[in-house]
Amino acid sequence: MPKSVISDAVKRRLPRYYRFLTTLQEEKAERISSEELSRRMGVTASQIRQDLNNFGGFGQQGYGYNVDKLKAELGRILGLDTPHHIIIIGAGNLGQALAGYSNFQTRGLIVKGIFDANPSLVGKRVGDLEVMPMSALKDFIRDNDISIATLAIPKEPAASVAAELYGYGIRAFWNFAHVDLDLPEDAVSENVHLSDSLMQLTYWLNNG
Amino acid sequence: MPKSVISDAVKRRLPRYYRFLTTLQEEKAERISSEELSRRMGVTASQIRQDLNNFGGFGQQGYGYNVDKLKAELGRILGLDTPHHIIIIGAGNLGQALAGYSNFQTRGLIVKGIFDANPSLVGKRVGDLEVMPMSALKDFIRDNDISIATLAIPKEPAASVAAELYGYGIRAFWNFAHVDLDLPEDAVSENVHLSDSLMQLTYWLNNG
Repeated sequence: MPKSVISDAVKRRLPRYYRFLTTLQEEKAERISSEELSRRMGVTASQIRQDLNNFGGFGQQGYGYNVDKLKAELGRILGLDTPHHIIIIGAGNLGQALAGYSNFQTRGLIVKGIFDANPSLVGKRVGDLEVMPMSALKDFIRDNDISIATLAIPKEPAASVAAELYGYGIRAFWNFAHVDLDLPEDAVSENVHLSDSLMQLTYWLNNG
Repeated sequence: MPKSVISDAVKRRLPRYYRFLTTLQEEKAERISSEELSRRMGVTASQIRQDLNNFGGFGQQGYGYNVDKLKAELGRILGLDTPHHIIIIGAGNLGQALAGYSNFQTRGLIVKGIFDANPSLVGKRVGDLEVMPMSALKDFIRDNDISIATLAIPKEPAASVAAELYGYGIRAFWNFAHVDLDLPEDAVSENVHLSDSLMQLTYWLNNG
């Protein structure tokens, strides 16, 4: 199937399916109907069937979905069947929080290193890691098969840091800096703009 | 104008407009054309005109938008013209990072208190705050005009903590717990599911 037919909206929903299936696994459920999954996730059963049909179905009439199989298949689609090595730029509170986020490890998302431009943070222990200087980036990325860089830095240095990382071969950026990155076409960024998110609540409080 | 006509997609774009206008203000720009704003934001000029028309326009033919005025107006729509008092539940790395996030303060989003169920964290200093026990929640919310509760806690206690906060009058939840909250109809949650976001990148690396 050509990759382009998967809409962005479907791609955004996949991690949510994966999350619900993880919960079902924890509850020792072996199978689930699209109706039950629908009730739990708060989307229509037809939406679920349509979404999962994008990836070849997986469901069986009268049986529903096999939880383990569907989760494994979604994990494969989401690229979770192979480990991904991540670095974090910025060892402030947020960078440290992301370095210690245990949810990642279980999904094969492994934080291999954390870096900071501030010399007074270099050498500081963050969990099992030790903060490294920016001058160590190039070699570290080459030697550790890093595929994702997390930017937990202020907006001002974000563009130049992203350009530097791109130069070292990084193509996937997880961006917490409060600015949209202007990247070459063969790179992608996923933004987590915390203030933008919080403003959805202030909007609701003001207009809801 | 009836509130229901503002689509969710437009509401999600508003903070981004606000952010770009803040940058323009920092650059001392007095006005901007929809074409220039379009180029910077990477959306079409017609989209921008259409979005802002939802809120009464603000633009003038041949002049463009007045940066200060448009930012003030968007701020008003986003509920940023009055301060909002926030509490954070969970004083782990993430809770501490959110408590110290300076971007909020400048937008009138004030973190008034941070709480944790773990007695060994109670009393710990986090910036200007001191971690409080969960038993102090009820009085604190009543006495400090709290409108938003941030959940920086694991998924297991999230539902019961949200229910407790709802009982104390909280209606807006900023949820970092890795689970969707099932809230009464008069409450709202804005989810920041970090793993879901990171999986957009692993998907891209796998399928891009």
